[in-house]
This record gives sequence, C-alpha cells and structure tokens, in this order.
Amino acid sequence: MKKKSIPSITINRLSIYHRCLEKILETGKGKELEIISSFEIAEITGVNSAQIRKDLAYFGEFGKRGLGYPLIDLNRELKKILGLDKEWSIIIAGAGNLGKALVNYKGFQKRGFIIKGIFDNNPSKIGKKIGHIFIHDIKKIEKFIQAENINIGILVVPADSAQEVADKMVAGGIKAILNFAPVHFILPPEIKVHNVDLSIEFEGLTYYLNL
Amino acid sequence: MKKKSIPSITINRLSIYHRCLEKILETGKGKELEIISSFEIAEITGVNSAQIRKDLAYFGEFGKRGLGYPLIDLNRELKKILGLDKEWSIIIAGAGNLGKALVNYKGFQKRGFIIKGIFDNNPSKIGKKIGHIFIHDIKKIEKFIQAENINIGILVVPADSAQEVADKMVAGGIKAILNFAPVHFILPPEIKVHNVDLSIEFEGLTYYLNL
Repeated sequence: MKKKSIPSITINRLSIYHRCLEKILETGKGKELEIISSFEIAEITGVNSAQIRKDLAYFGEFGKRGLGYPLIDLNRELKKILGLDKEWSIIIAGAGNLGKALVNYKGFQKRGFIIKGIFDNNPSKIGKKIGHIFIHDIKKIEKFIQAENINIGILVVPADSAQEVADKMVAGGIKAILNFAPVHFILPPEIKVHNVDLSIEFEGLTYYLNL
Repeated sequence: MKKKSIPSITINRLSIYHRCLEKILETGKGKELEIISSFEIAEITGVNSAQIRKDLAYFGEFGKRGLGYPLIDLNRELKKILGLDKEWSIIIAGAGNLGKALVNYKGFQKRGFIIKGIFDNNPSKIGKKIGHIFIHDIKKIEKFIQAENINIGILVVPADSAQEVADKMVAGGIKAILNFAPVHFILPPEIKVHNVDLSIEFEGLTYYLNL
C-alpha cells in the first residue's frame, strides 16, 4: 500500500467517517448494527456514498459489494490508517488556564494521547505540577522533545510568543503542532499544523436557534 | 424561504463550506480570489461539487452558472443562514480551568458569542470574577437565563453533575448546549446538544506522523 499517494482530502474524509462510526459505537447503536452501508455513512456525514466507497477502496476490500461494511472492523481499520491505534507522546507549551484544562482533559489519554510534560516561562510555575505532570522551563523544551521522543506539541501560549515557541518545538524535532493561539505560523512545509478554533463548535447550534 | 424544510445534513455541510471560505479569507487569499467555484470548494472540503451546488441552491441563486460564487457574498450569506451574523448570549456552568480558559478565549467574542455569566457551586468561587465576568451561585442559573435571555449554555462541570446542570439550563429556557463533559444527556428532543471532543483535533495530524 503506497500510503503517500493518498490525497489529503481523502484523509480528511476518513477522519469524518471514523468519527461517524465512533459516534454510532458510543451511543450503543453499534450493538444492533453489525453492518453499515456507504449510504448510511453518507446520510450521517454528508459525503456522497460513491465518494465514500472510492475513499475506502484505497485501502483494500473492506466490505461486500451491495451489502456494506462490518462496522467494528471498518472502525478498527480506520483507526489504524489514521494512526489512532497507538500511543502518541505529547507536550503542552503554556501553563495557563487552557494548558491546565488540557492536562486534566480525560479524553486525550483515553484516545492514546499521553501528555509527558508542560512548559512555561513563568518562574513561579516552573517546577510545580499540574495533576502528576511537571511544569518545565520553556528553555528546556528542545532537549525534552529530543530526549523523550515527543511526537506532537500543543501550543497554548499567548499570540505574541506563539511563533517563537513553535520554532523551538520544530527545532526539537516535533513534526505536528496543535495550535490554540490565534496566529498562523511560518514553519517548514513538512510540519503539520492544525489550528483549533473553538468557536466552530457553536456553528451547528446557532442555525437552529435562528429558525 | 422555508428554512425548516432544509435537511440537517445540508446544514452540517453549510457549516463546512463556511469554514472553508473563512479559512480562505483569513489567510488573505480571498483578496486575489473574487470568485470561487463549487469545484474549488469541493477540492478543499471533500464534498462532491454537485452536492455543493445542490445545497447552496436551497437558499437561492448565489452564483453564475459555469462561473462560480462571489467569495465574500457567499460567505456573508452562509453566516446569515447559520445564524453567525448576530450576537448570542452565553453562560458557562463550571468555573474550573476549562471554564476560566473559555471565559478568556478571544475567539468567542470575535464571532459574536458573548459570555454573560459563569456559574459554580463552590462557595470560595461564587462572587469572584474571571476577567470581567462574575461567578454566580449555580442555584441561580435558571433565573439568570430567564432574566438575561441567554441562548446557549456551555457545560464544563464534572461528569457526575452534568445531567443535573443540563436539566437546570433547560428549565431556565436554554435551547442549545455546548457540552465538554464526557456524558450523553437525556433531554427533551427539541434541545440541541453538541458534545465537544477535543481529541478529535489530533486526527488530521496523526495520519501524517504514521507514514
């Protein structure tokens, strides 16, 4: 399987399909529903069913023509493709309220995102702990990333120091950044950045309030 | 325009198109690009271009056949349809780290989501302020919602009190809840709930780390 040749747009959609299946499994509907068709996934996700079949076909024969996909197997396979079947080592830069909240956020560990350290430049915070995670001096972030083999950096520092901290993460060897700061970074093209905008979470709601 | 007859799946996709246009406008590419075609939106969002044209056609004639949509006008219209062109009054239940972080989150105000109050049951927090927002006794949440005409409640309380607090929000008259607690509520069907899972934000990243 030549994974590199898969268009990024297909990867985005696989993420959408995976979320759709996870939701079905979480609400318990998965127990009755052993097989899911591309039409059912289309109904929930809004992606055209032919597109869904095409996207999944990149990764081999999942389902039976005309029948559908085995729900649990397909979900497991999507997890594997998306790299969600293993543990990833994370650091957080910024020990403010959001940094603290993310350290205590149960969902990360549950999904295999293990926080290894938190970094700040405030001397009154350095050396203390949030939960059982130490706050380190931001100056030591590069060495920590190398020594602990960190995969992903979460950036929750103020906007005016965000680029500088992102540069340090990349210098340490981080390949992917989850950024909560309201800035667009200038970074080498091979570094994957996902900018989080929490106000997006409201979008589905306001349409219905508006009716 | 009979808004109520629009399928919810179309609304979800409008949200996706809106995000796509916002991204283009934010990165400054919108300045050069006056017109965007359904094929270009398809390329970015992963939704089939015929589907995009069909979805947008629900709301009238936006573009010129064979030419595309005027980028800024389409974005303005999507904002309006999605209820994102006006201000919404918000409360936050839970004055923990995440509650504090959300009060200080710049993106909400920027997008018209105005936080009017924060609620907690901890006597040492009640009466204090986060930024310029007062922390009120959770017992007063129903009356506050009614008096201040609150539209949306954000729920960041621990899982074991989440259902109780959601019930209070609904009793006060709230129609939409943004829920960060790891629970699925039992609420009247007319109440719109969006469960936030921050670990989803990692999904686009781990595929590439996995290559």
